Amino acid sequence: MNDLHGLYLEDVTLGMTAVYSRTVTEADIVLFSGVSGDVNPVHMDQEFAKQTMFKGRIAHGMLTASFISTVLGTKLPGPGCVYISQNLKFKAPVRIGDTVKARVTVTGIDKVRGRITVATTCYVGDVLVIDGDAQLMVPRRTVTQEAAE
Amino acid sequence: MNDLHGLYLEDVTLGMTAVYSRTVTEADIVLFSGVSGDVNPVHMDQEFAKQTMFKGRIAHGMLTASFISTVLGTKLPGPGCVYISQNLKFKAPVRIGDTVKARVTVTGIDKVRGRITVATTCYVGDVLVIDGDAQLMVPRRTVTQEAAE
Amino acid sequence: MNDLHGLYLEDVTLGMTAVYSRTVTEADIVLFSGVSGDVNPVHMDQEFAKQTMFKGRIAHGMLTASFISTVLGTKLPGPGCVYISQNLKFKAPVRIGDTVKARVTVTGIDKVRGRITVATTCYVGDVLVIDGDAQLMVPRRTVTQEAAE
Amino acid sequence: MNDLHGLYLEDVTLGMTAVYSRTVTEADIVLFSGVSGDVNPVHMDQEFAKQTMFKGRIAHGMLTASFISTVLGTKLPGPGCVYISQNLKFKAPVRIGDTVKARVTVTGIDKVRGRITVATTCYVGDVLVIDGDAQLMVPRRTVTQEAAE
Repeated sequence: MNDLHGLYLEDVTLGMTAVYSRTVTEADIVLFSGVSGDVNPVHMDQEFAKQTMFKGRIAHGMLTASFISTVLGTKLPGPGCVYISQNLKFKAPVRIGDTVKARVTVTGIDKVRGRITVATTCYVGDVLVIDGDAQLMVPRRTVTQEAAE
Repeated sequence: MNDLHGLYLEDVTLGMTAVYSRTVTEADIVLFSGVSGDVNPVHMDQEFAKQTMFKGRIAHGMLTASFISTVLGTKLPGPGCVYISQNLKFKAPVRIGDTVKARVTVTGIDKVRGRITVATTCYVGDVLVIDGDAQLMVPRRTVTQEAAE
Repeated sequence: MNDLHGLYLEDVTLGMTAVYSRTVTEADIVLFSGVSGDVNPVHMDQEFAKQTMFKGRIAHGMLTASFISTVLGTKLPGPGCVYISQNLKFKAPVRIGDTVKARVTVTGIDKVRGRITVATTCYVGDVLVIDGDAQLMVPRRTVTQEAAE
Repeated sequence: MNDLHGLYLEDVTLGMTAVYSRTVTEADIVLFSGVSGDVNPVHMDQEFAKQTMFKGRIAHGMLTASFISTVLGTKLPGPGCVYISQNLKFKAPVRIGDTVKARVTVTGIDKVRGRITVATTCYVGDVLVIDGDAQLMVPRRTVTQEAAE
């Protein structure tokens, strides 16, 4: 298991940062609508979407938000962490073909409770599309494990 | 467009509620990992997951959270609304085969700014798995639209 | 269950209508070919399709027809209904990028047998692409259920 | 193109038959819900579905029906045919894990109009789940094409 485990609490430092970046495609939107059940026409119907303030189809906000979870669960702190909370502010739409850069930066470490706070942002180019923060539980490197290593 | 539009601000009342309910399957987890990129082994690798505090694979928190977006975008207030913010507290894990009931309840209406606040919960049976709240912009039924109907 | 149930027989009236609308994308065609197994080159192979009477790739007729099922199963009459029969006439091709509007209109109600008949059409702009009709069984709002509500 | 083309009108005889067979999985249902938009809880929500007459989740009728289109579009008559109409009677539910055998049998050939009529059935074991018939336009092997071969 240790081969697959991400960072332990002792490994995390303030200001650490990590990124996941991905181009949003029509296929992502179709598949996300299937797993979520969210077939809101602003995502699926170009004619409806053109008449909204967005002037065309946009990606599901939660699809973009899921890229934050990807950074947390695979990079910083990575496998082994537990998601406690996530606050999301949807600031601007993401469109088909946009490349989203999801970034996580450590802003707080609570050694006593074994939790960290991170700033979570998603950008398309220079445009902030999601702003927010999250809390995670990060396991300690136990004495037994340390001795075994 | 009016055929497809959801509720207008004038239609929303305090205490209104709507539900989306869905059984989480292995297929959902595989597909969500594909569209999100979140291949954290706690979701994908039964042997890794058995050694965590969850004692087995769990669904992505953001997959469960996406069911909230489904209620908002398809039922209450439905197509035409704009997602402003979402706060999520992950309270308990969701496992393969669990049926999640995502519920949205209107808790505040700001007629001046055209926004509503909703309580958002996800339950598996009697267990609260996600707690939170969201803010949405809901379009007004304009005079022109009323006349046209 | 009542939160999720659609219309009951007593709620359905002649002339009631509902719509589902969606832009058909390449991703839809790829995924539909995967779940159906229908890899007919007229859908998948632009070079083959260019030599047919359609002069290019077209969507699977059954993909477009499935949007009718979406109206029936999620809007009119919605969850709880049982699909008895569906007749489909494929009148014109649907191409990638077309937005299909599937409409269901109640044309008959058989209170004794608990069945309704609906007209089912799919349009791309002004062009009728599928014409047809369907029969559904719609549950009655039972005395017990009424009392419980 | 001829390498990929299916049967021509001259190749089709009364009684010809062909089959496509496939096990329906949870993944098929999730993906079909995504491409169709049909998230009716009878397909997606085990708890809702258990309370219906079906006593559990069932596949979308149109998913099963799509297997007929697969026989027509890939086997009999195969690529090059044009789908004119399809009548479907949904006789029994299909469940996750069921293997559906879709069969097409030629019942009529109209040499003048270049159309054929086929019987279309779907079975799970000995149970008829879909009954129906279809009409297709089948291209003639032209003199030019014959000479070129």
